Amino acid sequence: MIAEQYRNMLSAKSVIREMSQYATKRGEEIGYENVFDYSLGNPSVPTPDEFTRSLIRLLQNEDPVKLHGYSPTLTIPEVRRRTAESLHRRFGIPYTMDDIFMTAGAAAAIAHAIRAVAVPGDEILTFAPYFPEYSPYIGLAGMTLTVVPADVSSFQINFAEFERMLNPKTMAVLINTPNNPSGIVYSTETIRRLADILRRKQEEFGHDIYIISDEPYREIVFADVDAPCVSAFYENTIVCYSFSKSVSLPGERIGYIAVNPACRDGKTIIQMCGQISRGIGHNCPSSLIQLGVAEVLDRTSDLKVYETNMNLIYDELIRLGFSCVKPGGTFYIFPRALEEDAVAFCRKALKYDLVLVPGDSFGCPGHFRMAYCIRTEKVERSLKALRAFVGKEYPNRG
Amino acid sequence: MIAEQYRNMLSAKSVIREMSQYATKRGEEIGYENVFDYSLGNPSVPTPDEFTRSLIRLLQNEDPVKLHGYSPTLTIPEVRRRTAESLHRRFGIPYTMDDIFMTAGAAAAIAHAIRAVAVPGDEILTFAPYFPEYSPYIGLAGMTLTVVPADVSSFQINFAEFERMLNPKTMAVLINTPNNPSGIVYSTETIRRLADILRRKQEEFGHDIYIISDEPYREIVFADVDAPCVSAFYENTIVCYSFSKSVSLPGERIGYIAVNPACRDGKTIIQMCGQISRGIGHNCPSSLIQLGVAEVLDRTSDLKVYETNMNLIYDELIRLGFSCVKPGGTFYIFPRALEEDAVAFCRKALKYDLVLVPGDSFGCPGHFRMAYCIRTEKVERSLKALRAFVGKEYPNRG
Repeated sequence: MIAEQYRNMLSAKSVIREMSQYATKRGEEIGYENVFDYSLGNPSVPTPDEFTRSLIRLLQNEDPVKLHGYSPTLTIPEVRRRTAESLHRRFGIPYTMDDIFMTAGAAAAIAHAIRAVAVPGDEILTFAPYFPEYSPYIGLAGMTLTVVPADVSSFQINFAEFERMLNPKTMAVLINTPNNPSGIVYSTETIRRLADILRRKQEEFGHDIYIISDEPYREIVFADVDAPCVSAFYENTIVCYSFSKSVSLPGERIGYIAVNPACRDGKTIIQMCGQISRGIGHNCPSSLIQLGVAEVLDRTSDLKVYETNMNLIYDELIRLGFSCVKPGGTFYIFPRALEEDAVAFCRKALKYDLVLVPGDSFGCPGHFRMAYCIRTEKVERSLKALRAFVGKEYPNRG
Repeated sequence: MIAEQYRNMLSAKSVIREMSQYATKRGEEIGYENVFDYSLGNPSVPTPDEFTRSLIRLLQNEDPVKLHGYSPTLTIPEVRRRTAESLHRRFGIPYTMDDIFMTAGAAAAIAHAIRAVAVPGDEILTFAPYFPEYSPYIGLAGMTLTVVPADVSSFQINFAEFERMLNPKTMAVLINTPNNPSGIVYSTETIRRLADILRRKQEEFGHDIYIISDEPYREIVFADVDAPCVSAFYENTIVCYSFSKSVSLPGERIGYIAVNPACRDGKTIIQMCGQISRGIGHNCPSSLIQLGVAEVLDRTSDLKVYETNMNLIYDELIRLGFSCVKPGGTFYIFPRALEEDAVAFCRKALKYDLVLVPGDSFGCPGHFRMAYCIRTEKVERSLKALRAFVGKEYPNRG
């Protein structure tokens, strides 16, 4: 007897993975440098030298028994303390180590956060377009993911639908700003309005409603963009952070939960994370990696290539007649496809070795995602292919 | 609304942790070198130099974007392949990479294995004495942990009770040999008989019953001990391995699942692990650590201190009149206490700065565990304290 639920998932393919596999295979035929692979959100810039140097220093100088020893249940105190201090310094919110729990990336942070504030049968609400992995994260924990349709004109929040869909079973609202896949950053006005509604609904429903703020792209914000700190606007905020994108460590599985110190049950939630870990088999991220990121809390990789790429792509898309909301951060852009069926659109693009991902699995059909975490030189070459694609396949556009 | 289930766990203290915290506190008063802390199973010998050197080499020479990049869903192919080859070479079982899934230690391996072969409501059966964390591992996955009482004369399997307790809801039998806390290794006769019964019960119940073999102590086996490879005796075996003890990396959270290549659904189970990860927020162990352990698959730390310590302690216990089954491996020993209430016994021992752990939470009251992963010099000093403790508190014994 093997568990049917997981066995059945094997036949449901991830479109992103399929596209990425296609790109790899095509690369073997024509050379990967000739495949314009916009499928995967894998950072293209190296981690800061400080991270590498600090790992080498730890390995060379520390007692290996201590260095590789068990983390305490709530993760390494010194790392939690320094993370809290960094957040306090940067965002003005008085975090202490009691508000911090280190996790194996944002995925693990979300796995803990949802289990801390909801139980099977409860609803977690999110906004389209959204990261497709939210579905298994929430669904396999026995909860229901409710998706508020996108406001495609701005990719801010569709508040009318949001208010209609909020209900007493909604225990948390899962947001992702800067957003994968749209690249949009929620404005101060959006966050303020979201917080106001939630405060009102908490009263009405008689229970707390948490914002789970998934923030792996927090440090990738472009020039002059209004990028408010969510926690500053709402007490019951649980930040789920990952170092994957900011310091280019996606494979090292490192991030944290930071609960707003003003959250009434915040310290208890952090303590509970240590118990939740026991059930889902986490028991802390790697000790070495925890100590390593503690040395680069206030640093990032050299992220400016993403803005350069975005501007090149955005300008070309507009020139070609695409409808597109300009990203404020991340390394994604999410234009409207040139035909209603984005899957068909992306399939045609493959003929030009352009690997794009249809928006359907992000809860936003008719759009497509480009992950432009690739070298600028390749972006430039890809725009020629994009022009050829649009010119030949959609001659009446642009 | 925070989840009561986890909140309530906060008041239920772990005895092991409490004892360990006492030891730390007492250490601040009298110097930790004077506290005979037998509470925690934290390895006391360093990781092999090869591990440290290979991490440094990777950090110095590899492209950081590649080195720290995402693992594929089923973890790094090259690491899986080399793990399979090492197991094949060492145990003669023809594993291939399709049978291997790297995990964040044995805890994560078990978290995946139970979800692959059982669903909420099913039973997982284990044998006392057992690692107390099995309760949250199984219970928080919605399954029932059924515990077969110990055969205290040998700490092999109590087969009469086992056969009585096996039932159609039993989807897996979770074993741990060499065993925490008893230090006992299941004999060839025990494994063979276990396998025979399970094969018979599979027929009778009309479904597979898996052995989930939790093997973090596999490499810590003492001289002349019969230590059979479980997989060699039973097709439906899922090995859950950890590098924590064998190469002293408990904090790095690295291990694997190895499904017997003869297991009919084995390759599917490995594929399913990639899906299970999505629900419990794992998404692979650290890439760097995966690559690091691939360099030390056939090595161990210098483990002989554990046998030296065991012999010193065992001989002294016998001299003092304790009843004790001699360990065949691990760094644990599990004697019978000198009074019925092992908690009271361990409390009295604290007066002599002996930190022992009562067996109650291991499903075996009346016994106590000593984790002798400490320096031999300290073991020797502790035996003086042990003699004083027994002489004064139990003058009629020994």
